[in-house]
Amino acid sequence: MGKLYAVGFGPGGLEYMTQKCIDVIKSVDVITGYTTYVDIMKQYFPDKEYIASPMMKEIDRCRMAIELAESGKTVAMISSGDSGIYGMAGILLEMKHEMKSDVEIETVSGITAASAASAILGAPLMHDFTIISLSDLMTPLDLIMKRVDCAGQGDFIACFYNPKSKKRVDYLKRAADILMKYRDGSTPVGVVRNAGREDETSYLTTLDKIGESPVDMFSIVIIGNSNTYVEDGKMITPRGYSDKYGFAANGGKDE
Amino acid sequence: MGKLYAVGFGPGGLEYMTQKCIDVIKSVDVITGYTTYVDIMKQYFPDKEYIASPMMKEIDRCRMAIELAESGKTVAMISSGDSGIYGMAGILLEMKHEMKSDVEIETVSGITAASAASAILGAPLMHDFTIISLSDLMTPLDLIMKRVDCAGQGDFIACFYNPKSKKRVDYLKRAADILMKYRDGSTPVGVVRNAGREDETSYLTTLDKIGESPVDMFSIVIIGNSNTYVEDGKMITPRGYSDKYGFAANGGKDE
Repeated sequence: MGKLYAVGFGPGGLEYMTQKCIDVIKSVDVITGYTTYVDIMKQYFPDKEYIASPMMKEIDRCRMAIELAESGKTVAMISSGDSGIYGMAGILLEMKHEMKSDVEIETVSGITAASAASAILGAPLMHDFTIISLSDLMTPLDLIMKRVDCAGQGDFIACFYNPKSKKRVDYLKRAADILMKYRDGSTPVGVVRNAGREDETSYLTTLDKIGESPVDMFSIVIIGNSNTYVEDGKMITPRGYSDKYGFAANGGKDE
Repeated sequence: MGKLYAVGFGPGGLEYMTQKCIDVIKSVDVITGYTTYVDIMKQYFPDKEYIASPMMKEIDRCRMAIELAESGKTVAMISSGDSGIYGMAGILLEMKHEMKSDVEIETVSGITAASAASAILGAPLMHDFTIISLSDLMTPLDLIMKRVDCAGQGDFIACFYNPKSKKRVDYLKRAADILMKYRDGSTPVGVVRNAGREDETSYLTTLDKIGESPVDMFSIVIIGNSNTYVEDGKMITPRGYSDKYGFAANGGKDE
């Protein structure tokens, strides 16, 4: 019996991979994943054996990876970001159970897109936040928009994954309209495209303009809470709701 | 002029550090941070220069780090997890502005506690989630509990940071009671203590029992959404609200 790793390699650059990710990738017999991810890893680890599959064949890819591990191979199923956040870890565990396999599956965490985008924008995630996927392929649109409304009510910073696709052109605008029931149209918004890759771009805008701003499926959108501000080109959410310079006590940690 | 890095080193083990974290730590002149974090880094990088300071002196530590960088040193301000999530990135940018300094500050993302805990528990974060700190040192308790209520309304998976301290013994129970207005008491809950460190422990329980379960300030608590289940000892949130085995199309990604 081999072993199966669900490996998140982070945004894409080698420098964002954890030591464990690098060690696992170097040690396994086979690396498998969506074609785009395989192409990224081949740049850094060209001598490994890869099995690439198109995005639409996810279940087949999981089954194949589990069967490979059962046959004695060590296998890494790779994805960008964190394999534990909207990643491959869940579907692998589900398929393992479905196949009544007793192969060992280990998740190797990676830097998720919200972390990578946050570092580029400044410090927007210094307070409570939500991560919401705006893709309605597997989640009813009503529930997605209900969650956006909850993010608004609770004054959460909101990170949107999958903010737009060819088919979903207006969901981001609808989400922004919902949030504007609760916070000002001037609320800072940061957009990062291809965070941590060579062609990374980012910009800051405001909640009332994000609906018309250039955003695509490779972008992450971070909407500030009611206290978020922009200073020296950086998007910053204060860590507390107390007086800005009264936070000297212990900065919100009471450990 | 030197440079200042806000470095998140992840849960604690060297294997969870990114390549960039390791490179920056190796290259800087001085590493500074809360005593506990300095002790962790000294294990792996014993030959570096460290300046440790107690938790309560956070503002002073930031000022000192900025002044050191202004004097020409390269400095790493370290913290566990991701420096961009409830971390040092924000306070450094705020202090830089306050001090009218033009020192360059770069954030180096790390694996945040939710990611590390998730990998240990199974795959609880396969759908939309909130991260909420239950510490009320800098946030009004009413707002924290309002956010918990919003997490309940929106059927978000809920990750609680700082779930308990000596002074805050019942907040987690209050949060669980609020969530039980919206989801069943049998909802799976995972607790991870010292995720990714040598003395890591974890267990699964349910929402109706978490209030009385052993949780402390070094723990992360992850509460499932209405679809989360436990199978083979793993906590799993399905990636969609569609039929469990009808997700073969593309697994929620429509890129």
